[in-house]
Amino acid sequence: MRADDVLGLRPCDRVLVVAPHPDDETIGPGGTVARLAATGIEVHVLCVTVRRGRMYGGASDPAVREQEFAKACAALGVRNQVVAWIDETGLEDVSARQRDLVDLIERHEEVSLAAVDPVALIIPAAGGYHQDHQAVYRAGFAAARVHPAGLKPTPRIVLGYRGVEDRWSAVAEPWWLHVDTSDQWPAKEEALRAYSTQMRASGPRSIDQVERIDAAAGASIDTRYAESFVPYRLAY
Amino acid sequence: MRADDVLGLRPCDRVLVVAPHPDDETIGPGGTVARLAATGIEVHVLCVTVRRGRMYGGASDPAVREQEFAKACAALGVRNQVVAWIDETGLEDVSARQRDLVDLIERHEEVSLAAVDPVALIIPAAGGYHQDHQAVYRAGFAAARVHPAGLKPTPRIVLGYRGVEDRWSAVAEPWWLHVDTSDQWPAKEEALRAYSTQMRASGPRSIDQVERIDAAAGASIDTRYAESFVPYRLAY
Amino acid sequence: MRADDVLGLRPCDRVLVVAPHPDDETIGPGGTVARLAATGIEVHVLCVTVRRGRMYGGASDPAVREQEFAKACAALGVRNQVVAWIDETGLEDVSARQRDLVDLIERHEEVSLAAVDPVALIIPAAGGYHQDHQAVYRAGFAAARVHPAGLKPTPRIVLGYRGVEDRWSAVAEPWWLHVDTSDQWPAKEEALRAYSTQMRASGPRSIDQVERIDAAAGASIDTRYAESFVPYRLAY
Amino acid sequence: MRADDVLGLRPCDRVLVVAPHPDDETIGPGGTVARLAATGIEVHVLCVTVRRGRMYGGASDPAVREQEFAKACAALGVRNQVVAWIDETGLEDVSARQRDLVDLIERHEEVSLAAVDPVALIIPAAGGYHQDHQAVYRAGFAAARVHPAGLKPTPRIVLGYRGVEDRWSAVAEPWWLHVDTSDQWPAKEEALRAYSTQMRASGPRSIDQVERIDAAAGASIDTRYAESFVPYRLAY
Amino acid sequence: MRADDVLGLRPCDRVLVVAPHPDDETIGPGGTVARLAATGIEVHVLCVTVRRGRMYGGASDPAVREQEFAKACAALGVRNQVVAWIDETGLEDVSARQRDLVDLIERHEEVSLAAVDPVALIIPAAGGYHQDHQAVYRAGFAAARVHPAGLKPTPRIVLGYRGVEDRWSAVAEPWWLHVDTSDQWPAKEEALRAYSTQMRASGPRSIDQVERIDAAAGASIDTRYAESFVPYRLAY
Amino acid sequence: MRADDVLGLRPCDRVLVVAPHPDDETIGPGGTVARLAATGIEVHVLCVTVRRGRMYGGASDPAVREQEFAKACAALGVRNQVVAWIDETGLEDVSARQRDLVDLIERHEEVSLAAVDPVALIIPAAGGYHQDHQAVYRAGFAAARVHPAGLKPTPRIVLGYRGVEDRWSAVAEPWWLHVDTSDQWPAKEEALRAYSTQMRASGPRSIDQVERIDAAAGASIDTRYAESFVPYRLAY
Repeated sequence: MRADDVLGLRPCDRVLVVAPHPDDETIGPGGTVARLAATGIEVHVLCVTVRRGRMYGGASDPAVREQEFAKACAALGVRNQVVAWIDETGLEDVSARQRDLVDLIERHEEVSLAAVDPVALIIPAAGGYHQDHQAVYRAGFAAARVHPAGLKPTPRIVLGYRGVEDRWSAVAEPWWLHVDTSDQWPAKEEALRAYSTQMRASGPRSIDQVERIDAAAGASIDTRYAESFVPYRLAY
Repeated sequence: MRADDVLGLRPCDRVLVVAPHPDDETIGPGGTVARLAATGIEVHVLCVTVRRGRMYGGASDPAVREQEFAKACAALGVRNQVVAWIDETGLEDVSARQRDLVDLIERHEEVSLAAVDPVALIIPAAGGYHQDHQAVYRAGFAAARVHPAGLKPTPRIVLGYRGVEDRWSAVAEPWWLHVDTSDQWPAKEEALRAYSTQMRASGPRSIDQVERIDAAAGASIDTRYAESFVPYRLAY
Repeated sequence: MRADDVLGLRPCDRVLVVAPHPDDETIGPGGTVARLAATGIEVHVLCVTVRRGRMYGGASDPAVREQEFAKACAALGVRNQVVAWIDETGLEDVSARQRDLVDLIERHEEVSLAAVDPVALIIPAAGGYHQDHQAVYRAGFAAARVHPAGLKPTPRIVLGYRGVEDRWSAVAEPWWLHVDTSDQWPAKEEALRAYSTQMRASGPRSIDQVERIDAAAGASIDTRYAESFVPYRLAY
Repeated sequence: MRADDVLGLRPCDRVLVVAPHPDDETIGPGGTVARLAATGIEVHVLCVTVRRGRMYGGASDPAVREQEFAKACAALGVRNQVVAWIDETGLEDVSARQRDLVDLIERHEEVSLAAVDPVALIIPAAGGYHQDHQAVYRAGFAAARVHPAGLKPTPRIVLGYRGVEDRWSAVAEPWWLHVDTSDQWPAKEEALRAYSTQMRASGPRSIDQVERIDAAAGASIDTRYAESFVPYRLAY
Repeated sequence: MRADDVLGLRPCDRVLVVAPHPDDETIGPGGTVARLAATGIEVHVLCVTVRRGRMYGGASDPAVREQEFAKACAALGVRNQVVAWIDETGLEDVSARQRDLVDLIERHEEVSLAAVDPVALIIPAAGGYHQDHQAVYRAGFAAARVHPAGLKPTPRIVLGYRGVEDRWSAVAEPWWLHVDTSDQWPAKEEALRAYSTQMRASGPRSIDQVERIDAAAGASIDTRYAESFVPYRLAY
Repeated sequence: MRADDVLGLRPCDRVLVVAPHPDDETIGPGGTVARLAATGIEVHVLCVTVRRGRMYGGASDPAVREQEFAKACAALGVRNQVVAWIDETGLEDVSARQRDLVDLIERHEEVSLAAVDPVALIIPAAGGYHQDHQAVYRAGFAAARVHPAGLKPTPRIVLGYRGVEDRWSAVAEPWWLHVDTSDQWPAKEEALRAYSTQMRASGPRSIDQVERIDAAAGASIDTRYAESFVPYRLAY
C-alpha cells in the first residue's frame, strides 16, 4: 500500500504546514513531513504562537520553545520554519483573533501562502478539542479558499492532521487519507524527543502513545506505521 | 481511568453478545467479555452463521469453525454459546433475510433476548463494511426496541463493537465508551489463537493488528489496552 | 428500565455540573442531580456567570439570581455551588473568553475539576444555540481531556445536557443516555419554581414545557419522566 | 406559530401518504393529515402490507386490520386508502423486495404517484429502526426522484414522518418542519383508538406515549401539540 | 416544479434577510428576494458591516459600498435596507462580538426582528468558511429562538443561504429547499453588476460562476435556474 | 488548479470503474476516465447489469444497451469493458444479491479486482437514491477492504462518483476530490450521445443537465468543467 510519491507531489513542489504551537507539526504530520522532505519537496512550517507562563508539569519559556521547534524541524528535514507570535504575557487568547489568524496564514512575510505559494496546505483537522487548534483550523480553511488565478495563491491540496489528544473529540471526521510513514518513524521519534519540555513519560503527550496511534493508522493500510489525514481538498 | 464495574453491571447480571460469524465476538469485544465474565457476570454469545466453502486463504468447515468458537468462548469465560444457522451449501446470503434475523435475536430458544433476558445487548456497530455485519447490526437494533414491561425483554444497555477490519468504514461513528482491558489481553490473545483457520500471520486478521487497535484505544483513556464501543442506549 | 445506580456511580463519588447561567443546572439535568444526590453522591455545581441588566420580560439582579440559584440547588440536594463571574456591567461576552473559561473549569478554587476531582463532569451539550452555552461546552470539553495519572484530575465520565430551548438546534446529537427521573420530578419542579425571575407562565421557559420534554424523554425508555444526555465519554 | 395553510398547500391539492403497515399513517402524521383534509386537500394513503400471523401481544388478521385502517382513515378525513399487499402466509420479507416497492409507490393503480399525481409525498423518515420502514423510506425516496415534465409525476414536496418507536434510532435526523396539530388531537386520538388490535395500554404503542411525543413537538413551536417532519424536498 | 407562492408566503407578509457584508444578500438569495418582492412581499435587508481598507484586488470605501448595496437592493425590489456597522478603521473582528450581533439582529431600530416582525428570517447557512458568515449565522440562529407569544417576535420560517464561495465548506449541509428563480435571473444579474468593486471578471466572485451554481441548483428541480436553502425551521 | 497527473497515477497504472448499469460510468466519472486514458492509464469498466423490459420513455433491449455501452467506452478511451449480468426477464432485483455482487467485483474473470489488480477503484458514491447504486456501492466498498499483501489485490485508492440524479439524495457526502475535465468535455459529450436510448432531451438525464453539474463542479476549483468525487481511501 505504498506509492512512489504522496498524492502526486514532486521534488521542488512546496508544502506549508500550520501548527498552533511548537510540536503540533511533529505529533500530527511529522512522519509525512519527513517523507516529503526526503524526496526533495520543500516543507515550510508556520507556528502560530508560543506563550511564556506556567504550564501543568512545568513552565513555558519562548526561547526554549523556539530552540526545541528548530531542533524538531531539523530532524524532519523542514526547509524553513517560523514562530509568528511570541506571547510574553501568557495572557493572549488566540481563539479571539480570528481575522488576524487568517491574515497571518495568508500573508506572513516569511512563511505563509503568499510567501511560499504551496501546492499543499496542511492544517489541524476540524475536530480538535483545543480552542487554539479550532481557531487555526478555521483560519487555515478560510485562507485556502479559491482565488482567481493570478490574484493570490490557492493551494490545490488541503489536508487536516491530528492533534496530540485528538482521540478526545466530539466530531467524527473522515480520516480517509493515509501516508505510510514506516521508514520515517525514527525521524519522527527524534523530533518528538527534541520537545523535552513538552513530552511526558506517560499519558497522551508521551512518545509511547503517539507511537500507538501511528501503529493503529498503519493497521488501516497494512503497514508498520502511518499517519492519517482528513482530505478537505484535492484538486487535479 | 478504571472503575470497579463496567457501566454498573453487577455479578449475576446477564449480557448477550451477537456475532455474525465465529470470531467476531472475540476480535471486537473479547477483552470486555473476559472482564465481565471474570466478575461473575453471565455472558451468552449468539453466533448467527457459519458456512461451508472455499475461503481466500483456505476452506471453511462448519464443524471446525464451531470447535474454534467453543474454544475461544471458553478462553473468554463465556457461559453459553451457540451457532444458529449452519449453511452447508455456502450459498446463503444472510443480508437478504432481515426479518428472520430479527426473529432469531428475539427468540432463539437457547441464546436470545427471550432466552437470556439480558441487561446489556452487544452487537456489531453500524459502520461495518461487511453486508452480514450490517444486517446483524440492523436486526439487533430492531430487536432491542423498547417493549412495555412484562411483554418482552428490553435490554437497558445496547452497545456496538468493532469488526475485524472496521477501520475501513465510510461511517464515522462516535466510539465514546471505552473499557480498560489491559488485564484481559492474555485471555483475548488466547481466544484469538483458538481461531487457527481464521487468523492470519499478517494483515487485518492478524493478532498483531488487533493488538495495535486495542493499544490505540487504550491511548484514549491512558491505559495499556482498551476496547471502544458505540453506546446506542444506556438507560438508568 | 431502571437500574439501582446511574452508570455505576456509588455513594461518596463526586460529580461536577457546569452551568452557563443559574437555572441551566436545573432545566437540563435537574432530576438526575436530585437522583444522584438522593443516593449519597456529592454533586457540585459551577455556575459561570450572572449579569446585571435589562432582560426581555424583566431585569436581572445578580444578588437575586444567586439567591434563586442557592434555593434551586438546595431543592435538588446539591452539596456545594458557586457563581464564578458576576458581571455588574452586563456587557461581558463570555463567548469571547475561551481560555479563561477553560481555566475556570479546571481550577476554580472552590468548585472545579481541581477542587472536586469528580468521577463525572456534566456540561451543556454541543448543539445549544446560545453563544454562552456553546462556549461553556467547548471549554468543558477541553478541560476534560485525558491527563497522565497524578498530574491533573480527569473525569471518567463526561455527559452533555439539554438547555432550555435546545429543541431549537441545527445540530442533531445522539441523545443516547437516559436517566429515569420519575421520582425526582417533584424536586425538579420545586427547583424550577425557585427561579421566579427566570421562568415564564408559558413558552419555552415555562414549567409546562420542561415537563413535556421530560415526559417525551421518559417515553424513550417507558418511564413517566426521564432526562436524556449525550454520552461524550464513558471510561470503565 | 400557526399559518393559514401548511407549506402553501391549497384546497384541491393532493397529498400521498405511504404507510408500511396500517397505523403508521396515524401515529406519525395523523394530525397533519386531519388538518390538511379539514381544509379541503385530498389525502390518499397507500398502505404497503398487512400480514396474517402471531404477534407479540395478539394475532394479526388481515381483514380486521383493514377494517381498523378504514376506520382510522375515516376519522382523519382521508379521501381514499388502500392496502396493497396482503401477506396471508405471514412469511414475506418486504425489505427484500426493494424494486417491487418502488414500482408499487410509482404505479399502484388506485393509490400511487401515477394515480394521484400529488403535490406532496409523505413517507417514513430515514431513521426508523424497523426493516420495513427503512425499505419503504428508500423506495419512496427513489420513487420521488425528479422526472422531466410530462413523463411521470414528480411531487414538489417530500416529507419524512416519525414511526411509533422512532425515538429508538441510531440516525439523528433534522426534524425541522413542524405542523401545529393542536386542534387535530381529538381526531388523531380517535384514529388511534380505531387500532384496537395494535395499540397497547402502556409502552411505546400507547396513546399516552404518542401524546407525549406530540406535546414535546408542540413545545418546539410553542403550541399545545405538533407533529415534526424531515423536509427532504421543498420545491417552489 | 413551480408553485404559485413560496412556502405559502402571501402579499404583505414580511421577510428579513441578514447579510454579513453588502453583496451576500444578492449572491446567495438574490433571485428569491426578487421573486418574493415581485409578489408584493416586503423584503428588508440588514447588512451587518462594511469596512474601510485594502482588499485583494482593490480598496473598500464604505460610502461606495453603501451605494452599491442600495443599487443592488433596488434591482431586487427590496423595501428597506441598512448597513449597521461602519468600520472606519478596518480593524474590527465581527466574529469576536457574538453578543452584540445577537442584539443587532434582535433589536436594530430600523431593520431587525423587532422592527420588521417578519414571517421568515433568511441568514447565511452554517457551513460558510468565512468567520463573519459563521458569526452571523450563529447570531441569527440564536435570535430566531422561540419566544412566548407577545413577548418578542419569532419568525415561523428560518432559512440558510449560500455564500459566494461556499462550495468550499467542510460542512455537508442539507440543501433541501429550492426556489425556482428562472424568471428572476435578469434581476439578480443586474444586482450583481451593481457591485462593481466586489465582483471579478473570473473566479468565484464572477457572475459566470454564480450563474453556474444557480443553473446546477435548477437541475435539482428541472428548472433553468434555482437557489437552494437549508430549511432550519418551518412552522405551520 | 490542474496537476500534471491525477492523484499521482502514472502511465500503465490500472483503474477499475464499476457501473451499476451502462451509462453510469459516463455520466459520473466519464471526463475523468477520458483524462486518465489520454495519459496512458488503462481504464477497465465492469458494468453490473442490463435488463430487458419496458422503461419509462421506451424499452430496454440488452443487445442495444451493450452496443451503446461499447460505443461510449470507445469515446472515453476505455481499455476493456464488460456487462456481467444480462437480465432477460427484467425481474431481477440486484439489491437483494449483496453477496453475489461482492463476488462479482472481486472475481469476475475478465474485469474485476482479481483480473485487473488496479491502483484505483471507482464506484458509485454512498448517497445515490437508486437501490442498485446503493447495492453496488456497498459491494464495491466491501470488495475494497484491505487484504494482506500477496493474498488478494487491494486498491490503494477508492473513489465514489455521482449518479445521474444524485442531487436527489438524503445523504450529504464530502465531495472533496475534484478533477479538472475541461479538455475532456467533448469526449464525455460524445459518450453521452452514444446512449441514445437512455438520454433525454430535457430533465435529469439530458446532456444539458449533466453539463450544468460539471460546470458547477468546475466552479469549485475555478476551471471550466470538473467532476467531483468522495475520496473514501487514499493510501500512499
